[in-house]
Amino acid sequence: MNSNSGEVDDDLPMRWNGWGDPHRAAPLSRAVRALLPLLLGRLRRPEPAVDIEDVTLAASALTDEDLAALVGAVGTAGIDTTDEGRIRHARGRSTPDLLRARQRAQEAPDAVVHPATHDEVRAVLDVASERRIAVIPFGGGTSVVGALHPERGAHRAVISLDTRRLSGLLRFDEVAGEALLGAGTTGPVAENLLAARGHELGHYPQSFRYATIGGFAAARSSGQNSAGNGRFDGMVTGIRVATPTGDLDLGRAPGSAAGPDLARLFLGSEGTLGVITEVRVRTHPVPRGRIFEAWTFPDFVTGADALRRVAQHGPGPTVIRLSDEAETAVSLAQVGRIGRLLARGAGAVTVFEGGDAAGRRERTAEILRAAGGQSAGEEDAAEWLRGRFDGPYLRDALLDAGVFCETLETATTWSNLSASKKAIETALKTGFEDADARSYVMCHVSHVYPTGASLYFTVLAGIQGDQLAVWERVKASVNDAIVGSGGTISHHHGVGRDHAPWLIDEVGDTGLRILRAVKRELDPRGILNPGALLGHSPEV
Amino acid sequence: MNSNSGEVDDDLPMRWNGWGDPHRAAPLSRAVRALLPLLLGRLRRPEPAVDIEDVTLAASALTDEDLAALVGAVGTAGIDTTDEGRIRHARGRSTPDLLRARQRAQEAPDAVVHPATHDEVRAVLDVASERRIAVIPFGGGTSVVGALHPERGAHRAVISLDTRRLSGLLRFDEVAGEALLGAGTTGPVAENLLAARGHELGHYPQSFRYATIGGFAAARSSGQNSAGNGRFDGMVTGIRVATPTGDLDLGRAPGSAAGPDLARLFLGSEGTLGVITEVRVRTHPVPRGRIFEAWTFPDFVTGADALRRVAQHGPGPTVIRLSDEAETAVSLAQVGRIGRLLARGAGAVTVFEGGDAAGRRERTAEILRAAGGQSAGEEDAAEWLRGRFDGPYLRDALLDAGVFCETLETATTWSNLSASKKAIETALKTGFEDADARSYVMCHVSHVYPTGASLYFTVLAGIQGDQLAVWERVKASVNDAIVGSGGTISHHHGVGRDHAPWLIDEVGDTGLRILRAVKRELDPRGILNPGALLGHSPEV
Repeated sequence: MNSNSGEVDDDLPMRWNGWGDPHRAAPLSRAVRALLPLLLGRLRRPEPAVDIEDVTLAASALTDEDLAALVGAVGTAGIDTTDEGRIRHARGRSTPDLLRARQRAQEAPDAVVHPATHDEVRAVLDVASERRIAVIPFGGGTSVVGALHPERGAHRAVISLDTRRLSGLLRFDEVAGEALLGAGTTGPVAENLLAARGHELGHYPQSFRYATIGGFAAARSSGQNSAGNGRFDGMVTGIRVATPTGDLDLGRAPGSAAGPDLARLFLGSEGTLGVITEVRVRTHPVPRGRIFEAWTFPDFVTGADALRRVAQHGPGPTVIRLSDEAETAVSLAQVGRIGRLLARGAGAVTVFEGGDAAGRRERTAEILRAAGGQSAGEEDAAEWLRGRFDGPYLRDALLDAGVFCETLETATTWSNLSASKKAIETALKTGFEDADARSYVMCHVSHVYPTGASLYFTVLAGIQGDQLAVWERVKASVNDAIVGSGGTISHHHGVGRDHAPWLIDEVGDTGLRILRAVKRELDPRGILNPGALLGHSPEV
Repeated sequence: MNSNSGEVDDDLPMRWNGWGDPHRAAPLSRAVRALLPLLLGRLRRPEPAVDIEDVTLAASALTDEDLAALVGAVGTAGIDTTDEGRIRHARGRSTPDLLRARQRAQEAPDAVVHPATHDEVRAVLDVASERRIAVIPFGGGTSVVGALHPERGAHRAVISLDTRRLSGLLRFDEVAGEALLGAGTTGPVAENLLAARGHELGHYPQSFRYATIGGFAAARSSGQNSAGNGRFDGMVTGIRVATPTGDLDLGRAPGSAAGPDLARLFLGSEGTLGVITEVRVRTHPVPRGRIFEAWTFPDFVTGADALRRVAQHGPGPTVIRLSDEAETAVSLAQVGRIGRLLARGAGAVTVFEGGDAAGRRERTAEILRAAGGQSAGEEDAAEWLRGRFDGPYLRDALLDAGVFCETLETATTWSNLSASKKAIETALKTGFEDADARSYVMCHVSHVYPTGASLYFTVLAGIQGDQLAVWERVKASVNDAIVGSGGTISHHHGVGRDHAPWLIDEVGDTGLRILRAVKRELDPRGILNPGALLGHSPEV
């Protein structure tokens, strides 16, 4: 097993109403329990979550003829109409998704289909187009932007198209370092298959253990090693796509100038234009060894300027992250080490893998030191790596304790970073204050580019009333603040349904017209993920 | 002036029927004159080229009403209806273009418009849409794929839209290292403007001295420093586009995942979807110093494998190029140094600029040596840099001497590189043999990626009959060989009209349908560059 991929049982389904491995769910640590009342005041225990057996669903809207046609496409074994199967495909893992999963009456797709080949995907799309059934492509089920909501749009019914049987390493070109992977291959399975050939992809978003290669592509994922390995976009050298009106096999050669790069239309299309069935990616030899170094800065602004210098200087770390003062304080508290480092300040983590790691570390350290950083040794950086996939487990425990917890993110230029951060924090704090809720907002930079960086916020709030309703209002005002302050509506979570109303701020009316024109051409009946990305338009 | 940008008078128009500065045109050197008969046999002097005053054009098809409407869009000073202006906008600089420029009767646009602002571009498109006039966007006029042919399609007339008044540095963000440039800014003007701020773009295609920033974007250009600075695609952080039905301002933030990256639809659109009016690019501080090292390999295959190792290893040279045996022999002959290096073998050039240049040189040298290379010192690499923009001048002299000379290019994976090279060489040689012409084919790799590389061919031929007719046949069979052997129809020249019939091999029927759907949406009357990229389709 690849050392990066962490321990995970490939076949274990995710906890149906929370994150990850049900056996790893754990209550809050004593340190966090002590901290919460200080930050958020008195908390109200929520109603206990519903058991999966007690969830009530509407009866499936599929007719016997629909089911027979779908059986024709994927075989009997490829269709799941059980309540459990439907419930497990009813949502992603945003906090609103998890709050809705606590309720008794739930929405769910009318069935789940599990095509095993590209041709079976095409056959499902043919059936669905003909019979006017909406199709929600479903990979790891880790969307946090409502991309998996079982919306039928103008159609009679809605099915979830689970890609996870499209799994495996279909081809590996050792000379070119290219791997062709089935879209439903999960992160760990992909890395294990590649590791057996001495290679890795090196893409580690927090959803890594469950999310799929096709999902990474469809949602333009970015992983924790993006400073060294780039965004997932940049790893993709080709894709195969099934659409209701034809197939695509894009990415003929590296460095082509043969017209626009059409693969880019599907990276970020979030299942609205077609179903990605295969993804060709560049890989690299598994790096040997790893160098860690943690840093501390007097404040976030100083730290961010230091990260900018590193990003603009050329080959630096594989991982670089900077927490603001609020996140730094809580991280230290969580691991029981308040006061071990500077009591105030902003902590950063660097990790170096691959060629010339020692030289890159040395040059990076020089830049960080000159920009006001102070080395804090290896341990905190190594500890970050060990715990890096655990954040969502903590959220489950917080929700159980009545603490609202959610994340959101953007990116902007270096010159606009502090202004955008402030605007977003103000929107969050004001929004919660208006709902009489105390909140605690933390932020980090985890993806850097020569021209700018991401901002990733974690918010905790002690909401006394309806958490879903309060968050809906706060989130809307935060999204306004994001686009109003020059940020993008998403750096790596995507658009889904939750951000769809803000896409126009990103691409304008003419940009939306382009996307709708492509959708009309490929999916003239609008069966694919209605309402996601493009929102609800009269046209599509 | 930026040390990279070379000497060029910014305002000097290019030689109307050849390359570059008319004063730098020079006859063939004695060495080349001695070599040619050995390679190609007896050559036939061509008919003398026509003088520009003797060219005959059809009368402009524009009516007084058309002209009045265009004056309304760009003012009187913005319209050129002179024969010279029309002739200078009649073509690019492919060898067929130059051969056609030698003929007396020529095709040309009915007028040239020179909008000075984005809004004037929009106004031109409005007039042209309303009055059914085709519009050919024109930057530096350096297309070598027929993208500038004055084709009116189904329209009454055709105008050239010259972008060169849209020139200048419109905004510079020093912190982010981002520059907003007018699309008509030429390579040298852009570099000089940036150099005054201590920055550079570092994009040096052979067309650099004349081509424009908008042209680089529209044609997905790749420069000689691509190993270090990347393709032009990758430098673009935003674009502004005028289309007949709306404007676009794309590229809100670095690292966005807000739906598909729509800017990518315009990079490579070659003036068929809209007119790019502004381009935002990432820049970097002008590198200090430069390290040169030339290499020689026993043969091309060994050299190519060495380049692959460098490309897959991580940060290497800023420039890396490898000539095959045929090109190496001629290069040495040209500079009168046959025998100075190994008499046989494949020569390579590396240049290092920017951060850790010495370290990168050392690590690159280690890899090249281990892969069978032998260092050949600095001089040949420095000489390549001095002469790197001069190739097209040599072509003019060859054409004057009756030698047919043209270049073509592709890219493919490392694993397919040798097979594709052989297939293309065979198609070239067979094609010329079938026309009873002796030929000499040279090839180099000048752009490397982790998964593959470009192949750039220069072909010389002693064609006795109609050079245009012979080349048309040879070129078609070469294009078949390129796509048949797994290459892309273009690595950096683009598609234009010359490669349009092969675009379907690249993106398939569904891919063409997508491009046509976008064109219908943005340019419903099909006025923009009819016949380019998408070819002649009944639909658009």
